[in-house]
Amino acid sequence: MEVRRGDGSVFRGVLMPKHETSHPDTVVIKLGNGYNIGVLVGEGDDIVVKGSLRPGTPGALVPLLEEPLQPAEERVYIIGAGGTIASRVDYETGAVKPYLDASELATTIPELQRYASIEAEQLFSILSEDMKPSMWEAIVDRAARVLEAGYDGVVVAHGTDTMAFTASALSFAFHKGLPSPVILTGSQRSSDRPSSDAAFNLTASVLAASRAPFAEVAVVMHGETGDTYALAHRGVRVKKMHSSRRDAFQSVNDKPLARIYPFEGRVEMLRDDYRRRGESGLEVDNGFEERVALVKHFPGLISEVIDALLDRGFKGIVVEGTGFGHVSSDAIKSIERARDQGVPIVITTQTVFGRVNLNVYSTGRKMLAAGAIPAGDMTSEAAYAKLSWILARTRELEVVRKMFQRNLAGEVSERHILRLYRH
Amino acid sequence: MEVRRGDGSVFRGVLMPKHETSHPDTVVIKLGNGYNIGVLVGEGDDIVVKGSLRPGTPGALVPLLEEPLQPAEERVYIIGAGGTIASRVDYETGAVKPYLDASELATTIPELQRYASIEAEQLFSILSEDMKPSMWEAIVDRAARVLEAGYDGVVVAHGTDTMAFTASALSFAFHKGLPSPVILTGSQRSSDRPSSDAAFNLTASVLAASRAPFAEVAVVMHGETGDTYALAHRGVRVKKMHSSRRDAFQSVNDKPLARIYPFEGRVEMLRDDYRRRGESGLEVDNGFEERVALVKHFPGLISEVIDALLDRGFKGIVVEGTGFGHVSSDAIKSIERARDQGVPIVITTQTVFGRVNLNVYSTGRKMLAAGAIPAGDMTSEAAYAKLSWILARTRELEVVRKMFQRNLAGEVSERHILRLYRH
Ligand SMILES: N[C@@H](CC(=O)O)C(=O)O
Ligand SMILES: N[C@@H](CC(=O)O)C(=O)O
Repeated sequence: MEVRRGDGSVFRGVLMPKHETSHPDTVVIKLGNGYNIGVLVGEGDDIVVKGSLRPGTPGALVPLLEEPLQPAEERVYIIGAGGTIASRVDYETGAVKPYLDASELATTIPELQRYASIEAEQLFSILSEDMKPSMWEAIVDRAARVLEAGYDGVVVAHGTDTMAFTASALSFAFHKGLPSPVILTGSQRSSDRPSSDAAFNLTASVLAASRAPFAEVAVVMHGETGDTYALAHRGVRVKKMHSSRRDAFQSVNDKPLARIYPFEGRVEMLRDDYRRRGESGLEVDNGFEERVALVKHFPGLISEVIDALLDRGFKGIVVEGTGFGHVSSDAIKSIERARDQGVPIVITTQTVFGRVNLNVYSTGRKMLAAGAIPAGDMTSEAAYAKLSWILARTRELEVVRKMFQRNLAGEVSERHILRLYRH
Repeated sequence: MEVRRGDGSVFRGVLMPKHETSHPDTVVIKLGNGYNIGVLVGEGDDIVVKGSLRPGTPGALVPLLEEPLQPAEERVYIIGAGGTIASRVDYETGAVKPYLDASELATTIPELQRYASIEAEQLFSILSEDMKPSMWEAIVDRAARVLEAGYDGVVVAHGTDTMAFTASALSFAFHKGLPSPVILTGSQRSSDRPSSDAAFNLTASVLAASRAPFAEVAVVMHGETGDTYALAHRGVRVKKMHSSRRDAFQSVNDKPLARIYPFEGRVEMLRDDYRRRGESGLEVDNGFEERVALVKHFPGLISEVIDALLDRGFKGIVVEGTGFGHVSSDAIKSIERARDQGVPIVITTQTVFGRVNLNVYSTGRKMLAAGAIPAGDMTSEAAYAKLSWILARTRELEVVRKMFQRNLAGEVSERHILRLYRH
């Protein structure tokens, strides 16, 4: 369709369904570049429509379907955990709030049925900044029951802000045995906005859950700014690297698992070393310790921060050190104190990319001697979830250290990357 | 030169000076791809040398100089603050320790004299994880006295780990008036290693200090993995983004200032909006508050972390929130408590890229109402240094907020980037 406005501007594209709370005088058009815009139409403006119109549903995927779909045979279960993907703008305050429930979400996107018949359930209606380890447990429980019931895959619709933490947590809870994919997805713009990425991400996620050959916990989100493919990132490797871009998610220190093309219905694997669908049965190891903190080094009183957490009875602390993972020399006595209290201190790096290596500098060696546990090239998110998972199993320091240093779900790799840079 | 070893391997490149503590039977060769390697030479191996040899100095820049240089007329002062750039491997323990003093560093790299006559002084011999706000003050003082004495520029040789914090701090202390560049540089591998980036970075920095047209605080470090150019990053925008790569430093949410080509002696500006050399006189505003903390949101007890810091009398806290800057709802009462105690809470984002926006979601709006100060698209490093600088001037909450939200040194930009993504 085409809108020719009195001011001379012309907008050409596919007419998109609009939400009931949109301004009554706008039409929403998907432009050739993939972006949706809302165009205010008034007197003196012409609207030229070609083809048929279809009653709108918020955030539906183009092209509009002329015929109702025959749902695919695969069965996918969507667990709603809140977030922007389940949100609408509250037109009174202008703020975005979780609103839709998961089944509403599913029915507003009929295209999902191309890849699976969908069932959906709302578990939480929160923004993901309110996610807690006890809620990770609830998601694991629910997903486990779904998989026991024989579904082909699970999609967890989740806020993007702490999705990397939850994805890591789920990876550890399911690392002993997972027969089918568990996909986390979300959106950077709420479903009622014309530019929402909700439908694209959810469709890609249902496709991955129903048909991808991997049986892993993965995050599926836009892979580039256009609408061509989503990327499936291993849950323990993913990080949200931008506050607002649709392609904000990246795999850190590792390759993504796959590209997912939701329009073509195609999954392209990007690596070979993944757990195959159906290869193992379900073995759940659920449970997370909440009294774990994540802090970071800064030039000053980091030792006081660690001391304050020890005073408050935290049971484990992840410290994002600098560079290879260093903290200041005066913080080393706090690391010793933690060890004496039986509290593990795990070290990641605030450079995001690269890896902790406490063997190069004198500071690092002293940290190791004081009991610090280096996290290799793990993300801080994965290290946090892993420590929380381990501490729900044992508090014996030496056992914690051993479990931490074992690769459980692909969260850490050998140091071949580093070697490239050493002589 | 060429080494042909008995095992059939051939190494061809430029002979590099080696350090006295290197293995006596190695020669160090700079290969065609820019990398230096140490080759163990034994009986049955041939060494073919073309051209002249020159007694070695650690980490010297190739090509070897045939003639002693006539030092350039510009005068640059190097302040040594420790770090890997001033370190050697301790061959007893194998660990790297700060060792060289700044003038030793300068004389080992005769190529520096192409761009300036050098004076140098050692201020600290620490690894930069031990840097503190009081040391920022000492660097500012020293650099100010050097600039008053009429030098064309200052180079601060510094550890890379917390360089972004120090660069930000210096930017605020000098934001009112700086006649010449203040360049921070360092190296990812110590000067005695054949693959060290020390000579390259230091030469590029001396070139920038003596001849670049900008009069700003900048970090000059390798711009790519080869040896073509270094990048000059605005001090308030830079971040170390990899634990070990030579091109680990990036400008975040902004373009670098310039490319510096140390072999060609060329400075290529990448933007127009910079402060010109000689445009303003020197106006120093030194002084930093040490009782400021930097922490980050995680799914759990972030409210307890904030409370613990308030209990300990911290005077300001920077919280790296998630996404647009959110923290959990239950942490909002801790933000309120901070306000009631007169302690500013500044919010940055842990996505690294993008910007804080507390107006979109209900959580953000509640945070604003509780008194949180959004840091826009500032890095956490810049926000930390800025809050520390402001708190050394005022503790009145409303004045802190106003000062914080003013752009002082290019640390924050308008939200045009975000607008691209909203409809
Ligand atoms: N604050 C929201 C943002 C999002 O979903 O994109 C959340 O994480 O729940
Ligand atoms: N730990 C060292 C690392 C370096 O200089 O690269 C420092 O920051 O001082």
